[in-house]
Amino acid sequence: MEILVFVFHGITALDAIGPYEVLARMPGARLRFVAPEPGPILTDNQLVSWNVELGIDDARGADLLLVPGGFGTRTLEHDLAVLEWLRDLDLTTRITASVCTGALLLAAAGLLRDRQATTHWAQRERLREHGALPVAKRWVRDGKYATAAGVSAGIDLALALAHELCGRDVAEEIQLAIEYDPEPPLDAGSPERARPEIRDAVLQRVRRRDAALAAAAGHEP
Amino acid sequence: MEILVFVFHGITALDAIGPYEVLARMPGARLRFVAPEPGPILTDNQLVSWNVELGIDDARGADLLLVPGGFGTRTLEHDLAVLEWLRDLDLTTRITASVCTGALLLAAAGLLRDRQATTHWAQRERLREHGALPVAKRWVRDGKYATAAGVSAGIDLALALAHELCGRDVAEEIQLAIEYDPEPPLDAGSPERARPEIRDAVLQRVRRRDAALAAAAGHEP
Repeated sequence: MEILVFVFHGITALDAIGPYEVLARMPGARLRFVAPEPGPILTDNQLVSWNVELGIDDARGADLLLVPGGFGTRTLEHDLAVLEWLRDLDLTTRITASVCTGALLLAAAGLLRDRQATTHWAQRERLREHGALPVAKRWVRDGKYATAAGVSAGIDLALALAHELCGRDVAEEIQLAIEYDPEPPLDAGSPERARPEIRDAVLQRVRRRDAALAAAAGHEP
Repeated sequence: MEILVFVFHGITALDAIGPYEVLARMPGARLRFVAPEPGPILTDNQLVSWNVELGIDDARGADLLLVPGGFGTRTLEHDLAVLEWLRDLDLTTRITASVCTGALLLAAAGLLRDRQATTHWAQRERLREHGALPVAKRWVRDGKYATAAGVSAGIDLALALAHELCGRDVAEEIQLAIEYDPEPPLDAGSPERARPEIRDAVLQRVRRRDAALAAAAGHEP
């Protein structure tokens, strides 16, 4: 099973590394990272530099494509070469998946039109810009498209995919191997349960960063 | 606040990236990765290559030190330069923390003697080799030492540390920003609740890899 995880400048590291830690453990899986061009990429906060050997020009097929998110997707939503690659690669996949704002890339590529999908809660309504139907769930499956909510939701989606692709025993072994028995010490992980002032603070930070990125790129925010 | 996350060949990526995604978001925090030597490191499965600019010779103090795990700790437990660096750096920290088998490195450095600690469930009893007192909890705090269980447990520990260091509002904003509202699709994340055959399969895989690593290094398994 060929798995491609798309990575790029401005990615949120956990969006990719959470699912990778699950999917790479599936027996028979060959997981590779692929970037717009081979070479080092830097995460959204510039703190992780990651060497990627494979560029999109040399990646022409996969059984599973996973597109993580991060503020870098803002730029890539307008990158015609990347969007065309996503469309072409999607023709070869059994499952096309995203985490967080990776869904906005899939949507911008036209792959989620009239499909139910999710993304980071603070960006959920933006799915409509590209004709997708936003749903407030941890992850959403519509046909072969599987989209997860923000950042950490990719771990849950990846375990569900491992279950589907390799069966319950394998998925449970992976869950136990990474000791995924979460005990969040606070209960603010969903916009429905977080206090309003917490939600507003996060939302304003996202909006400010989005506006700055859009201004820098010369696009409408 | 200076945060150092120790990284090394054979690290499990999520051990580091889970807590990093939380800790790097704390206002005023400067998070840096530090490796035995500057240069690229490769994860346990050789799939992620990560450029690290800072080597331990140039990292002499931190408010918070986090030591992730991975099979690479097996080798580092015998690396006297690394163990000495951990001891020296620990003299400067307010909190010294670990995820997964990172606790075995802290223990091998002599920092957990007679202290309660935890690590990956399959390696928990090994803490006794270095005089630590294993506890079956998601994370354990004993004095300034904070140790988390396997791989994904570092996210929970990091949120608890953000709460302690920056207060509830900041910790909740971080939790909401990374949408950490876990919904594991299966219930096999703890050795107590996983089916016995699942537990045995994971344990045997860990034992085989441990034995191979010990044999390759010329140490007793």
